Amino acid sequence: MTVLNHRILLAERPVGIPGPEHFRADVEPVCPPGPGEIVVASRYISIDPAMRSWIGVGPSYVRQVGIGEPMRAGGIGQVVESRATGFEVGDWVQGRTGWQSHPTLRGDQTQKLDLSVGSVEDWAGPLGTSALTAYFGLMDVGELRPGDTLLVSGAAGGVGQIACQIGQINACRVVGIAGGTEKCRYLAETLKLDAVIDYKAGPDIGAALRRACPDGVDVYFDNVGGEILDAALIVLRMGARVVSCGRISQAGAKEPYGVKNLGALGGKRVRMQGFLVFDYHDRYTEARAFLAHHLRGGRLRQKLHVVKGLDRAPGALAMLFNGGNTGKLVVGVG
Amino acid sequence: MTVLNHRILLAERPVGIPGPEHFRADVEPVCPPGPGEIVVASRYISIDPAMRSWIGVGPSYVRQVGIGEPMRAGGIGQVVESRATGFEVGDWVQGRTGWQSHPTLRGDQTQKLDLSVGSVEDWAGPLGTSALTAYFGLMDVGELRPGDTLLVSGAAGGVGQIACQIGQINACRVVGIAGGTEKCRYLAETLKLDAVIDYKAGPDIGAALRRACPDGVDVYFDNVGGEILDAALIVLRMGARVVSCGRISQAGAKEPYGVKNLGALGGKRVRMQGFLVFDYHDRYTEARAFLAHHLRGGRLRQKLHVVKGLDRAPGALAMLFNGGNTGKLVVGVG
Repeated sequence: MTVLNHRILLAERPVGIPGPEHFRADVEPVCPPGPGEIVVASRYISIDPAMRSWIGVGPSYVRQVGIGEPMRAGGIGQVVESRATGFEVGDWVQGRTGWQSHPTLRGDQTQKLDLSVGSVEDWAGPLGTSALTAYFGLMDVGELRPGDTLLVSGAAGGVGQIACQIGQINACRVVGIAGGTEKCRYLAETLKLDAVIDYKAGPDIGAALRRACPDGVDVYFDNVGGEILDAALIVLRMGARVVSCGRISQAGAKEPYGVKNLGALGGKRVRMQGFLVFDYHDRYTEARAFLAHHLRGGRLRQKLHVVKGLDRAPGALAMLFNGGNTGKLVVGVG
Repeated sequence: MTVLNHRILLAERPVGIPGPEHFRADVEPVCPPGPGEIVVASRYISIDPAMRSWIGVGPSYVRQVGIGEPMRAGGIGQVVESRATGFEVGDWVQGRTGWQSHPTLRGDQTQKLDLSVGSVEDWAGPLGTSALTAYFGLMDVGELRPGDTLLVSGAAGGVGQIACQIGQINACRVVGIAGGTEKCRYLAETLKLDAVIDYKAGPDIGAALRRACPDGVDVYFDNVGGEILDAALIVLRMGARVVSCGRISQAGAKEPYGVKNLGALGGKRVRMQGFLVFDYHDRYTEARAFLAHHLRGGRLRQKLHVVKGLDRAPGALAMLFNGGNTGKLVVGVG
């Protein structure tokens, strides 16, 4: 029986929020592995906000996915055929699977998972790239210090949940912003944040921030940009750091939101900085040691939001921008 | 004959641009110096953009000047009476003179000028606080490196001129933005910048920036904020630094300008940072050694824009926000 590789290809560049209309399904025989290559049966494929910039019409920090190419994505799966030294059939690996059920990958661009450190699900969640993003964003860019007040927007999302918990581990007061009762209850009751703001609950995010952060904010981990960033700038303390991780609020915006309160940077000596997790590649081991340690100790958890079926990947991507996910969003395959 | 201290007092908090209507003149006998105090005959009083925040209705990073108090300002003058150890009549000093002709100051808050390093005018200009601001902003906050492309807005102003020349001294390609033919000619012909943009000459600052910086910008020294900042964000290179020094374009704005292009921070790993020169107080000697060295070598110059007469200080302050000055703006007294 020939094994088939189901793929989801980019059909059209989205201008606003990407969705099913911008992709098409495709199937082909599995590409036979050449020397140094492996075939992987995908299990969890990551759905990330950055994907929008890889396929959109605007400038991107990496090469854009071409029309007719399989959508680019990181994923986890099991080796089903190997011509690469060090990879055996049955090994669990992570790599650039793309939106494919049985991708053929280069062994030297694929990492074996150490299941003594965490489960397959852990590697998709609290040991995955979103968690690394939270770690380096907070510790390096944000220079988080014990006792800081940490404000996290998109706090119920894949990166946000981990950012909140890294703050708790570092003895910070942690305030999360999310949209909707369910997400906010999760943050308050399960993660036990010090304060939670539901930005959908009222019009005045500024007043809510002043109430939740009466002494101001030392580190703002920004996953959303736009209006919430503008309000957060007002409550920053002297020497505060703004970690510019994402701008998901701007994904569907017809006109980009204009941020008015940048004057805060001057008088309050604020540093606002963007980063890409890939720049920290040499230090992933350090970050994973930290994350695995606290995972084992029960101080770190992550809700995986699994959407089942590769064909639902485009819809899952749209869900990300509509605030539909709680936790790290992945597509479950096979 | 009793010496009189002429003073300009804050009469009313300006909402927009401060001007003569917000101040009133006053005269009193000189306050007799107590132990440790000196009386100074002011010579040059600095007029700075930061003054607006010291007297406005918004939040300020330092205590606001009270209604009926003399306007706060740094200045240079000559000691006319001394009860402080180490200060002799005739010594040139700098300190917080305020807008006063004969302030009584504490010796321990006043510094004697070393005229072997530079003239009185040099201490008001290229060795003064504006120059220190440019130095620490570029070298520390901006982490300027030889070969960088440096973009400076408000390039003809007190801080901007020095920033441009520090860039030249550090083997950078320097592009200046200023408003009007006279300022731009000064930057091109006297300071010999690599490129000069007159933002008043055309509507499309973005296109002008792309022409002047075809390979992008490594450090943007921002004295103006607003629309020019928004355009500059587009031409930043990977890893660029934005030094948030001032936002003078927003001084008279009814509604603050909304900055739309902060998305540049993420993908391009940009750092944008505010600072206050006073935080670097311990390192003024280092900065002055650098500035004095290049001043003697002819690689640093600064146009002093002297407005004569203490009573014209309020008008001079308004001029700063209307783009009326070229070079470091001071009021000449006595």
